[in-house]
Amino acid sequence: MIHEHASTRKDQIYHVAERLFSERGYHATTMREIAREIHIEGGSLYSHISSKQDLLYAIVLRGSERFLQAARTVVSLDGSAREQLRDLMHRHLAIIAESIDGAVVHFHEWRHLDSAKRTKIEQHRDEYEGYIRQIIRRGIDNGEFAPQDERLVGIHILSLLNWAYQWYKPEGRLSADALAQQFYEQIMCGLEPRNT
Amino acid sequence: MIHEHASTRKDQIYHVAERLFSERGYHATTMREIAREIHIEGGSLYSHISSKQDLLYAIVLRGSERFLQAARTVVSLDGSAREQLRDLMHRHLAIIAESIDGAVVHFHEWRHLDSAKRTKIEQHRDEYEGYIRQIIRRGIDNGEFAPQDERLVGIHILSLLNWAYQWYKPEGRLSADALAQQFYEQIMCGLEPRNT
Repeated sequence: MIHEHASTRKDQIYHVAERLFSERGYHATTMREIAREIHIEGGSLYSHISSKQDLLYAIVLRGSERFLQAARTVVSLDGSAREQLRDLMHRHLAIIAESIDGAVVHFHEWRHLDSAKRTKIEQHRDEYEGYIRQIIRRGIDNGEFAPQDERLVGIHILSLLNWAYQWYKPEGRLSADALAQQFYEQIMCGLEPRNT
Repeated sequence: MIHEHASTRKDQIYHVAERLFSERGYHATTMREIAREIHIEGGSLYSHISSKQDLLYAIVLRGSERFLQAARTVVSLDGSAREQLRDLMHRHLAIIAESIDGAVVHFHEWRHLDSAKRTKIEQHRDEYEGYIRQIIRRGIDNGEFAPQDERLVGIHILSLLNWAYQWYKPEGRLSADALAQQFYEQIMCGLEPRNT
């Protein structure tokens, strides 16, 4: 019998659960199927994870933490509002590109969380959106950005970034960094020609 | 026994299925549950719909047809590229706002379609995206829009509109029309202040 590090086993469980939740949906995935894919006994799975619901929560929470960590880093670094916005867009798309399955679970299957857990995740999303809004507000105040409804601008930017899990192929020709740069330029310049 | 019109019954089935597929996910919803919610026998459901898979397909297809119908109408009307873009954004958000459950099924549960049906829906999406790209291209060619990567601009606009099913509350203070107008202005003007 091979000695396995607990966190490695846990990562493996997360990885398989992300894929199955993404492919089949949370409700249609059983703990037994997850165990089978990892080649362990169903009972042994429960020594790592207490329930399917907790597993879903752990995956969604890990996503929240990654996004929040990125936002905290970005606002803690000195930089103009534009630099911070561009930096955050790059980091956000990198998190999605790292695991499309994880993003599907984070952005879609999270709706199957129990009410208290869903509320917690909603708080994390509000906090994250708050960081984006704070960057936009600072940019409007110091003249880097034109005056706008900062809430709807925040939603606009999040829509653009989050929807990537639906179409973006990390193995394709367009890198996540190149995509972030193009989206940043579109967000900044708009479609209307400039008289410069 | 009440005589019921077949299309009304079918609408009722679609409506309940949309809600259950959206709330629980496609795989976790049974035909028996759908029948129970409509207060009919499971067997009687099959006189309207041949399978759960066909029901999913019918719902997703109905969404495709609405979007395509909107796009065909918009491009057939005379109007500048800007007018067409704004018009299409309004119509697109109106379709989503009309049924958030329908949008969840259309944009998420569609992944549970069998391969041939999924391909068909992908063709409809490509066709729809093609109309948006055509509007962008015309606007770039006639100077209404600044030169851009029209494919990524198309994806940008679709991301913005489609993501609305995740956060938009049709019963809230912001009407779908007001939202479309604000998003249109953001798409046109961008964040960078203009020297005018």
